Amino acid sequence: MGGNVRQTLEFMMYDWLQIEDLCRRERYAMHNRETFNSVLDVSEKIAQEQFAPLNRLTDAQEPEYVDGSVRLPDGVAQALRAYTDAGLLAAGHDEQVGGMQLPYVIDMAANTFFAYSSISLSAFPMLTYANANLIMAHGTESQKKAFAIPQLEGRYFGTMCLSEPAAGSSLGNIATRAAPDGSAYEQDVLGPRYKIKGSKMWISGAEHELTENIVHLVLAKIPDDQGNVIAGPKGISLFVVPKFLPCADGGLNAERNDVVLTGLNHKLGYRGIPNTLLSFGDNGGAVGYRIGEPGQGLALMFHMMNEARVNVGMGATMLGYAGYQVSLDYARERRQGYLRGTKSDAQRHQQARLIEHPDVKRMLLAQKAISEGALALVLYCARLIDDKRTAGAEQRARAELLLELLTPIAKSWPSEWCLEANSLAIQVLGGAGYTRDFPVEQFWRDNRLNMIHEGTHGIQALDLLGRKVRLQDGAAFDLWAEQVRQTIGLASESEEFSAYGAQLAKHLHTLSALTRQSQQPEYEDLSVAHATPYMQAFGHVVIAWLWLQVAMAAKQDSHLDSAFVAGKFAAMQYFFAYELERVPAWLGLLEKADQTVLSMQEAWY
Amino acid sequence: MGGNVRQTLEFMMYDWLQIEDLCRRERYAMHNRETFNSVLDVSEKIAQEQFAPLNRLTDAQEPEYVDGSVRLPDGVAQALRAYTDAGLLAAGHDEQVGGMQLPYVIDMAANTFFAYSSISLSAFPMLTYANANLIMAHGTESQKKAFAIPQLEGRYFGTMCLSEPAAGSSLGNIATRAAPDGSAYEQDVLGPRYKIKGSKMWISGAEHELTENIVHLVLAKIPDDQGNVIAGPKGISLFVVPKFLPCADGGLNAERNDVVLTGLNHKLGYRGIPNTLLSFGDNGGAVGYRIGEPGQGLALMFHMMNEARVNVGMGATMLGYAGYQVSLDYARERRQGYLRGTKSDAQRHQQARLIEHPDVKRMLLAQKAISEGALALVLYCARLIDDKRTAGAEQRARAELLLELLTPIAKSWPSEWCLEANSLAIQVLGGAGYTRDFPVEQFWRDNRLNMIHEGTHGIQALDLLGRKVRLQDGAAFDLWAEQVRQTIGLASESEEFSAYGAQLAKHLHTLSALTRQSQQPEYEDLSVAHATPYMQAFGHVVIAWLWLQVAMAAKQDSHLDSAFVAGKFAAMQYFFAYELERVPAWLGLLEKADQTVLSMQEAWY
Repeated sequence: MGGNVRQTLEFMMYDWLQIEDLCRRERYAMHNRETFNSVLDVSEKIAQEQFAPLNRLTDAQEPEYVDGSVRLPDGVAQALRAYTDAGLLAAGHDEQVGGMQLPYVIDMAANTFFAYSSISLSAFPMLTYANANLIMAHGTESQKKAFAIPQLEGRYFGTMCLSEPAAGSSLGNIATRAAPDGSAYEQDVLGPRYKIKGSKMWISGAEHELTENIVHLVLAKIPDDQGNVIAGPKGISLFVVPKFLPCADGGLNAERNDVVLTGLNHKLGYRGIPNTLLSFGDNGGAVGYRIGEPGQGLALMFHMMNEARVNVGMGATMLGYAGYQVSLDYARERRQGYLRGTKSDAQRHQQARLIEHPDVKRMLLAQKAISEGALALVLYCARLIDDKRTAGAEQRARAELLLELLTPIAKSWPSEWCLEANSLAIQVLGGAGYTRDFPVEQFWRDNRLNMIHEGTHGIQALDLLGRKVRLQDGAAFDLWAEQVRQTIGLASESEEFSAYGAQLAKHLHTLSALTRQSQQPEYEDLSVAHATPYMQAFGHVVIAWLWLQVAMAAKQDSHLDSAFVAGKFAAMQYFFAYELERVPAWLGLLEKADQTVLSMQEAWY
Repeated sequence: MGGNVRQTLEFMMYDWLQIEDLCRRERYAMHNRETFNSVLDVSEKIAQEQFAPLNRLTDAQEPEYVDGSVRLPDGVAQALRAYTDAGLLAAGHDEQVGGMQLPYVIDMAANTFFAYSSISLSAFPMLTYANANLIMAHGTESQKKAFAIPQLEGRYFGTMCLSEPAAGSSLGNIATRAAPDGSAYEQDVLGPRYKIKGSKMWISGAEHELTENIVHLVLAKIPDDQGNVIAGPKGISLFVVPKFLPCADGGLNAERNDVVLTGLNHKLGYRGIPNTLLSFGDNGGAVGYRIGEPGQGLALMFHMMNEARVNVGMGATMLGYAGYQVSLDYARERRQGYLRGTKSDAQRHQQARLIEHPDVKRMLLAQKAISEGALALVLYCARLIDDKRTAGAEQRARAELLLELLTPIAKSWPSEWCLEANSLAIQVLGGAGYTRDFPVEQFWRDNRLNMIHEGTHGIQALDLLGRKVRLQDGAAFDLWAEQVRQTIGLASESEEFSAYGAQLAKHLHTLSALTRQSQQPEYEDLSVAHATPYMQAFGHVVIAWLWLQVAMAAKQDSHLDSAFVAGKFAAMQYFFAYELERVPAWLGLLEKADQTVLSMQEAWY
């Protein structure tokens, strides 16, 4: 990665988030900063050498449907092999299953390089990682051995089959059905065996020739004897449905399971990974093994979904960062126009570089403040995931609460604002940015997916205002607000930071009051209508809070070079001056209990 | 066009802007509402039948470079022929040259249909129209006959050759040179004849086989005897450089002029029209005829540029509108999820339509408020263009001033916010919106050009804050503010509108004060740094002002159906509640004289 991206990553992890403390926990006792950095080094190298050169190619040559399978450009298999050969899929797992027992924050940091180099290729291991983790957490020993371990080893890849043509955001309405497979139901060592029938839509990576097998995790409902299913999400169960069935000896049946690729979706961006329509059971029923109990399907999926959502935020962040670096490099070289006050012929001899023009400086600083702010957010959440997994009971409980609250922000904020950053990157390049000679237009297209997949922006907003801020009677919100007040308290002790702390306190106060108001019964309909502006305001307050922490950490660090520190301080200032003051416009809608949207009638559009 | 787009267009023209008044002017005496509407009918029909079916095709099959020329998909020639055969290129011109003597506002209204159906195909006639108008206004009789009239007839198409590889926003730095062509300089009936040498970049429509000839309008500098040119914009002259030279008999030489297509730009969107790199004079010099006097080039170009900028705004507007209609149709049909409070099985029998969900209602209303607000702006400017052309002296002077002030807003505001509207259209469709099965992703890509071409966003902002608000000692700004106060005054007389008037007055007051402040010498550097946020704030105040006018006009009209009126009122409410309150965040930067961007150093990024 160019510029000081790596330096920023390490500063945030080691200096700000103090992740070396994790090495005092038994699980990570074999690690230290050097082992962490060696993982980052390997990841950065593979990402740069193997992923980056394919990013444009896989966009231009999108996946092709050929004879029931998918053709990908040359080089993709080799790049992904380099990723899996480095052991990164198992990075967080126990040494005894071939893992490195790395903390989640290092796992995520390693993956930032791949997202930065090619977001869509990095989706193959991301999905596989999530799939394997779910089976490792909830599968039986034989299921782990048959389906998860081969994924950790990179021999199989995995998918998540949730959505259907008529059920996207509304998963409770899925029509895929699972019926016990006769006597095999009870006799298969791989668990309760079913025959699955149904169609799944928007499934990424569901067909390719990259690996020996593909492991689908499929949501379906199990009808009772009368053929009825439980309405809504409670009726959903989870099944593992492999492309090829395992044999008793651990090998694979040559015969394919009854899973057929029905078609490819042709996307705006994110083209390196095929997105598909899959059909299960066209010829009698696809064999699937239930994971967990009937009706637990969505709960088990959400075990994985929260981390997946933070990861979406990370991907959006790195796209923002990538656009920032390209536009920064361009602005440093390209000469165009003159600065104000340039009059003499001598001065006019050479045009100014773009980076000298105030409006370009603004667009670059905006990208920096957004991308680095987003990076702080996703790393902070990764640190919480580590605490949730390995901290002592009290800290763990706090981390779980904070993580629940911040997950919709970690998913939505980078998705929305790093997309804006990508648009600014295009703008800095001007006409050149609008051509496919530069990668910024692809970043912008790729990033547009992130407000849609893994729960749309609107779903995140409802999750935040409808569920998360109400958790345990508002305990999650209160805990978070307490953290923000702590940061404000620290800022108040410093001449340099106290004004920013006070500015943040003002917005926190309004946000807190309106959060309480939104939960009063008479405001519930309105809250649904204002959930997205509320989430936008909340997100900006969160990022301002983190920027304040990051800037204070930078100023305290004597070993950092002064330009680096000044950059962090300037980005924080930018965020407070240009972005944080947008909050009143969003919160004003709740404050005034604005009825415009709720009152809108269909005939009036 | 779907929905009530046509109804909105007619309401704005006839009821709000009272354009039938124009028929009292001598030039338009032959016209009335019926003749106007028949032009709209023809245009809508051709656009729907000929342009719309090609929009996706011309995106997927982008222009191809074949043997020095450009291959376009089948059907393009026929569609453009239908446009020119309808006489639309000459619509505004005198009857004696084959025109219809239509007001500019009708001209623009007719073109809204084409922009809505295919923005990139509509760029061919837009460029031709601007080119021909310039020659009609500033060319000699023989130049008009040779180069403009054939364009008005649709036999030739035109281009604008301003930018060069090293001179985009900084036109004063162009390197193209024009040398008098020996004795031919004085003897050619087509005017002072030169040999042109240089490269031009980002030239749309510069090569194709659609017409008998292509007329390039080229900016170049004329060196003196020592080979020196005048530095900056003052040294620029304007030349007409045809692809094929006319013969004495009015026919064309079979031999091509020395203009060569060097390459095509491969764009993010707007792909229906080729964008090219052109080389002039590789084999000795391209023949070009000077228009106007030496050094007048940029001034003559800007005669055309202001209208072209309003037209960019119109195109952005119609893309916003097109996305709104597609997402509205989708939201009316698609069922997904349940409304809050849906509990019983009976209610759960059928999922709700998207349009019933509050967050979707918000996204649709936002698109309506933005697209229709933008339409009001560009129609208002078109009306000013008519006044500038044909009103009495006093009204003409006022229209000129207002138009100068509002042109950067008319160009920038739709470009920025209708792009946001297109992003919301994608969001309403969710995953489907991210595929190329629906046109919304193309609208979003196409629209991204509009903040770049015909003067970037940053250039518009500098034009507004650096020049336009200073015009005649602030006379343009004062005149505009007076208009806004008149609207506020009218609103104050109505119980329904007075609160909106007061809200607008508050923002106008701040904007006025900061406009004055920005012109004080000590604020000049800061003004350059804050020009874009200033323009964003100004734009939002302008649109709020127009929405207030539009909503009042709708309420006053007894012949309009109540749903239509309620929709206009709701869109106005939305704009005031959700958009106008963003203004303080932008103006706060000027108010606080924020130094963040100006202080930013290159080493800190």
